[in-house]
Amino acid sequence: MDLPAADTRSRILDAAAALLRRHGPDKLTVLDVAKRLGMSHGNVYRHFPSKQALRAAVAEEWLSGVTAPLAAIAAGNAPPPARLREWLAALAAIKRRKVLEDPEMFAGFHRVASESPEVIAAHLAALVAQVARILAEGRGDGTLPAVTDPEADARAVLSATMRFHHPDLVAGSGEERAATEELARITALLLRGLGAAAAT
Amino acid sequence: MDLPAADTRSRILDAAAALLRRHGPDKLTVLDVAKRLGMSHGNVYRHFPSKQALRAAVAEEWLSGVTAPLAAIAAGNAPPPARLREWLAALAAIKRRKVLEDPEMFAGFHRVASESPEVIAAHLAALVAQVARILAEGRGDGTLPAVTDPEADARAVLSATMRFHHPDLVAGSGEERAATEELARITALLLRGLGAAAAT
Repeated sequence: MDLPAADTRSRILDAAAALLRRHGPDKLTVLDVAKRLGMSHGNVYRHFPSKQALRAAVAEEWLSGVTAPLAAIAAGNAPPPARLREWLAALAAIKRRKVLEDPEMFAGFHRVASESPEVIAAHLAALVAQVARILAEGRGDGTLPAVTDPEADARAVLSATMRFHHPDLVAGSGEERAATEELARITALLLRGLGAAAAT
Repeated sequence: MDLPAADTRSRILDAAAALLRRHGPDKLTVLDVAKRLGMSHGNVYRHFPSKQALRAAVAEEWLSGVTAPLAAIAAGNAPPPARLREWLAALAAIKRRKVLEDPEMFAGFHRVASESPEVIAAHLAALVAQVARILAEGRGDGTLPAVTDPEADARAVLSATMRFHHPDLVAGSGEERAATEELARITALLLRGLGAAAAT
């Protein structure tokens, strides 16, 4: 009996991610994945028309897994200033963990993601949208009254904290305690810049 | 007649920089520099005890040339908020010009500088000191009343604008107009975060 198509698709993605974890980006091909699953490569191609499409899908799934906790924070009920602070701290913590805990695996996924600029662009756009949502709510409820353009301000906030989430910079952002303090200082400046009261 | 030692030293550094410009970092050795100047290599070694010392001195001179205009701005008489804005815009403009106008030459100097972490650290410390000076003056005259720790705040300001001056990021900071607008938005957030009045 055939599995439903969605199940096959996610089995393929799981196998591909496992291959990437164990053997690095070079082994992430349609043929290797098919072999691992005991599946014909025609069957894999039915879900992913090319090696490139397969690799892009693996990158997409990886990136959305990395940032899943952020979406939950952005959609939460905390007052916007506190929510922005929590969101930025979580982004930095997630990236630091990913980059430093298993640098080789991170490099593998990062390389695969870098092959698909459209996947990275969509990922960044999703992060900007989350921050923009927080900022728009802060403008709406008066806790961040100096927000002028939620999306442009969101881009500015992400740019200003790049050292703590850009894959090429995280490893150089220093010892965790110092990095956390610096991020907190920048976040406080940005929040006040966005009009937050000093105590929030 | 022998030239004074300081003249010989700067002739050596000029020749070394010229070699680096024309032939890339591999040709920057004591032997090549001596040959170019028609000087014995013993003479070069008298000023620079090793190839590494020569290369570090070239990097140091290059970096201080790059940022010389900034020191003048930091020491200027403009009100601190305007001075900080001018300083950050000048840093970004200098880096963008250096990185984009002649990427190969920039990469050569950058590689030589990367071999001397102590030279880069001193360079960054000088930049932090310039910003800290502006911030301390702003705290003193009341134009930046929310400055709490001029040096820590200066580090935060430089970190928050890293996208526009970090050598690995400048090329990816987008089209000049968009980058300038984003930097202006971040600078405005930071200035307000440091307590500047909205109009300054």
